[in-house]
Amino acid sequence: MKFIHTADWHIGKKIHGFQLLKEQREVFEQMLEVAIREEVDAIVVAGDLYDRAVPPSEAVALLNQLFVELNIENRFPILAISGNHDSPTRLETGGPWYQTLNFHLHTKISQSLKPIVIGNTQFFLLPYFEPIDARLYFKDETLVTHELAAKRVVEEMEKQFNSEYNQVLVAHLFVAGSLRTESETEVMVGGLDQVSASIFNAFDYVALGHLHDPNATRHAKLQYSGTLLKFSISEANQQKGFKLIELSDEGELTNQFFPVSPEKELRVLEGFFADLIEPTYYEAQKRDDFIYVQLKDTKMIPDAMNRLREIYPNVLGMERLDRSGLMATMNLTTREKLKTKDPSELFKDYYEEVMGEALSSKQETLLNELLQNLDVTNKGGRN
Amino acid sequence: MKFIHTADWHIGKKIHGFQLLKEQREVFEQMLEVAIREEVDAIVVAGDLYDRAVPPSEAVALLNQLFVELNIENRFPILAISGNHDSPTRLETGGPWYQTLNFHLHTKISQSLKPIVIGNTQFFLLPYFEPIDARLYFKDETLVTHELAAKRVVEEMEKQFNSEYNQVLVAHLFVAGSLRTESETEVMVGGLDQVSASIFNAFDYVALGHLHDPNATRHAKLQYSGTLLKFSISEANQQKGFKLIELSDEGELTNQFFPVSPEKELRVLEGFFADLIEPTYYEAQKRDDFIYVQLKDTKMIPDAMNRLREIYPNVLGMERLDRSGLMATMNLTTREKLKTKDPSELFKDYYEEVMGEALSSKQETLLNELLQNLDVTNKGGRN
Repeated sequence: MKFIHTADWHIGKKIHGFQLLKEQREVFEQMLEVAIREEVDAIVVAGDLYDRAVPPSEAVALLNQLFVELNIENRFPILAISGNHDSPTRLETGGPWYQTLNFHLHTKISQSLKPIVIGNTQFFLLPYFEPIDARLYFKDETLVTHELAAKRVVEEMEKQFNSEYNQVLVAHLFVAGSLRTESETEVMVGGLDQVSASIFNAFDYVALGHLHDPNATRHAKLQYSGTLLKFSISEANQQKGFKLIELSDEGELTNQFFPVSPEKELRVLEGFFADLIEPTYYEAQKRDDFIYVQLKDTKMIPDAMNRLREIYPNVLGMERLDRSGLMATMNLTTREKLKTKDPSELFKDYYEEVMGEALSSKQETLLNELLQNLDVTNKGGRN
Repeated sequence: MKFIHTADWHIGKKIHGFQLLKEQREVFEQMLEVAIREEVDAIVVAGDLYDRAVPPSEAVALLNQLFVELNIENRFPILAISGNHDSPTRLETGGPWYQTLNFHLHTKISQSLKPIVIGNTQFFLLPYFEPIDARLYFKDETLVTHELAAKRVVEEMEKQFNSEYNQVLVAHLFVAGSLRTESETEVMVGGLDQVSASIFNAFDYVALGHLHDPNATRHAKLQYSGTLLKFSISEANQQKGFKLIELSDEGELTNQFFPVSPEKELRVLEGFFADLIEPTYYEAQKRDDFIYVQLKDTKMIPDAMNRLREIYPNVLGMERLDRSGLMATMNLTTREKLKTKDPSELFKDYYEEVMGEALSSKQETLLNELLQNLDVTNKGGRN
């Protein structure tokens, strides 16, 4: 049994207002190429296919197309589940027909208890679910946490284990002790959504989705694939990709990570503003990447975001590495100067400093109206 | 070839705020029963499966389930198209897999040009489309009207005609000279969306969707099925149902109408208020129907809507048959009395008279605040 383990496609997701559909297609194609070359027996997608319960129609068109390419054009069996970002009801459209071509897309606990057998392996496809779903399904009011609910589900699965096969669990959940990144929506406060790794000991492999870092766990048999794309600045330094899992008839596990990256990568540029806009510097850069700027400067820089955008067209945003330095370095003369500055100018500088972008013309109009109504006269500020 | 012709399911549609999912399931079941008893060869659904491009998830769950029952549980081939209310992109999810079980759901012009052959018949499934879609597909800038675009599509279909078969067109459009009802969204002004019946002369039968009246056309070979439910007051007197079409090998057409009706039917009650709330009258009525009230009264009736709702729990609304009578019948004494009435009382009576329902408590609070701010004192009104 040789299969690809991927997850968290989040088709339709935007970062800082930028569409990623093109990038999502690119990394998919890199994965498809490996699937074909390695002649894998199945593709596992462990939840969060879409980024939202009601995805925009371009996202629907893309995901439909990716599944057509995998399952209809290339005849790969697909083993997929819904994640916390997906609407189970919407995602299950087509499900009963998908099965005719060995495409299994599970969205309910009940479906997860009946294994899908491919080659030497029983696959259990457990969609994301809430404890309330388990309470209803098992008619058991004691299943009040994710931990208890998952335990109960696994108990039920183990009854279906056939010792002649390997057992693989596909699930979308947060295994205790794993590392989170910013772009994973925090569903729970205080770790209530955590599930102990030990619950899953009976499986030969647990193919997880939910966390975006492929190294989020250190358990060899229980792994997150990570995302195919970087979905937040905090993921900028992660190598994204998918895993190729092999399970011998004796249950021996091999795990190989395949990196992927889109043509336009998400990157952080760190430096002084003057350096970043210096031709000798930026000409050596891939300027159309999705760039996030971290400035070392401590002085104000007028119109910084627009000036960056002229050079880096897909700049996502910017921030100061050291915010506190800004005021500290102002000498008294500067402070005195501030007193004579027009309030609207002061606000505009401040806004740009904090937000990393200039006021829009609409915002500027609103600001001026507001200041007029307040009858602000420049009689010197407080110290 | 014996098939059911139905259309305009509008799954998820509400009337006057009332969900119809239960009713939609009921009439579907009546249709399914006939399909099984008559051992039909196919089910044709001529567009507007959903009521909205992004249907609520309960609607998605219901339509998914209806198709499972038709195609997976009962193995009926389905020939369906998207209508103007559907999102082609969203509806085509699952499409390539549906085909494996002879469920054909077409959402694009390109798909319509390749006939689906079942028994002695070639079916051409033409989804709702705009002239711009035809211009793009045929790369022909002259296709500026629905008429020209439909003509061009049919020309292309005719090239695929095989004289050994009957030819049936399934389409969602407005045939010139047909009767419209209120609940059909008016897409075009001035009849620009009309298509001449003669364009379709070459077909043995044209199974249409779009108009809700099963008798909207008088062409024997070109018919609307009508809806399975009444979707507006203007449809209250239509008998709803579907058509059973038979086409012999010689192209002989038989058309049989099967009525369906939900347990709670949409009905108009006409009468004087006093009669409608009289036990001897309403006890003979099916009071939980979706009732629309047309009042013959010319006098004001306080709290009319709430009083009707106590007797008819699913009352949709009410109106006066003769509005003009209301003021005319007021004698001078009544008019004088009005002058001494509290403005808030006057407004409340008026609102209820016009809107057919009482002010909500929130509206009443707002009204009182407003009147207070206006400092309205009752010094006698104008004449």
